[in-house]
Amino acid sequence: MDIIEKLTRTLESRRDADPATSYVASLYAKGLNKILEKIGEESTEVILAAKEVESGADKAALVHEVADLWFHSLVALVHLNVDPQEVLQALKDRSGVSGHDEKRARAPEPGN
Amino acid sequence: MDIIEKLTRTLESRRDADPATSYVASLYAKGLNKILEKIGEESTEVILAAKEVESGADKAALVHEVADLWFHSLVALVHLNVDPQEVLQALKDRSGVSGHDEKRARAPEPGN
Amino acid sequence: MDIIEKLTRTLESRRDADPATSYVASLYAKGLNKILEKIGEESTEVILAAKEVESGADKAALVHEVADLWFHSLVALVHLNVDPQEVLQALKDRSGVSGHDEKRARAPEPGN
Amino acid sequence: MDIIEKLTRTLESRRDADPATSYVASLYAKGLNKILEKIGEESTEVILAAKEVESGADKAALVHEVADLWFHSLVALVHLNVDPQEVLQALKDRSGVSGHDEKRARAPEPGN
Repeated sequence: MDIIEKLTRTLESRRDADPATSYVASLYAKGLNKILEKIGEESTEVILAAKEVESGADKAALVHEVADLWFHSLVALVHLNVDPQEVLQALKDRSGVSGHDEKRARAPEPGN
Repeated sequence: MDIIEKLTRTLESRRDADPATSYVASLYAKGLNKILEKIGEESTEVILAAKEVESGADKAALVHEVADLWFHSLVALVHLNVDPQEVLQALKDRSGVSGHDEKRARAPEPGN
Repeated sequence: MDIIEKLTRTLESRRDADPATSYVASLYAKGLNKILEKIGEESTEVILAAKEVESGADKAALVHEVADLWFHSLVALVHLNVDPQEVLQALKDRSGVSGHDEKRARAPEPGN
Repeated sequence: MDIIEKLTRTLESRRDADPATSYVASLYAKGLNKILEKIGEESTEVILAAKEVESGADKAALVHEVADLWFHSLVALVHLNVDPQEVLQALKDRSGVSGHDEKRARAPEPGN
């Protein structure tokens, strides 16, 4: 079982947890908008941490912020009953392609 | 080899690709700010796609947008010579924790 | 008539314009999500331009990006039939307060 | 004196205020990254509040969030010694243009 799958199971188990003691359960209880606010916050923190690495800072903060961004993405998916393995499958479809095929693999974008 | 690792190898191989034919090579050539702009764009698109799912839309667009957000996160990491496996390790550290331990596992945040 | 009010009139007049020749009319035609995507994009560009100024770059790009962010905020307000003067009034309520009173002036936040 | 100018004076006066009692002085003291994090947060909150208005919610929260976004934009400008009147001037240049001229008025974008 890969890390994303293991974390997905943990996040699913938090549906029955007490919001007073589980951070994830407290996000579920506050609802989708609060989870999406966290995604907005974490993406900004990724951007700022990446600029710091560019300026010579240690990489630990960037690793931490990307993990936070992915973590809250997973919380949103589980909250909406979307299986994160579908995201990994979409990424897999891009991992074997040649440079030439990249743009074709990225299109068509559903919903756009 | 997991999907993230396979995709990392693909992104690393794009360093020597032609920006005219490889989307990833064209991002590397444009530089960090352009990659970070994409992360900002994709996080907004994740937020909007999640609201659409909440309103009853199909989940395919959300899966696609989260894949785009993670994909460009990986491009930023590879561009800055940060190993994405460090992000997976950070996520793994959160996957086995009890609800009680979640907040402790999330702190201290480096760089904050 | 102040600049925001004048620009509001211009944006309102674009409701009857041809999306083929008016950028604003094309945003209205594409709908709210497209306008909000622009706000997400422009906020990221403000953040990156501010970091460039911090690193010694010219301020013209930052001025341009903040104008873009405010411009698309106005487009969203007009699209949703919200009078931008209400935003100015909210800002006015904060302009005369003492440092001591700032936090009180910012609370309570409606909808939070 | 317009509202933006009056608020600018207030924000400038906070440079000498005590971070313990002035919210703006506390932002200046924490530095540019903290101010930019607020811009990222507030732009996400504008996006979510706009979606709520689209769903029939009251407009007060959206007005409040746009005011918050503009307020923190002004804090960033003052922190970087950029005169917000330059932003208003850039917006003024767009307020009198015909639909036909819009795209020309928006280009060229400095720094792109």
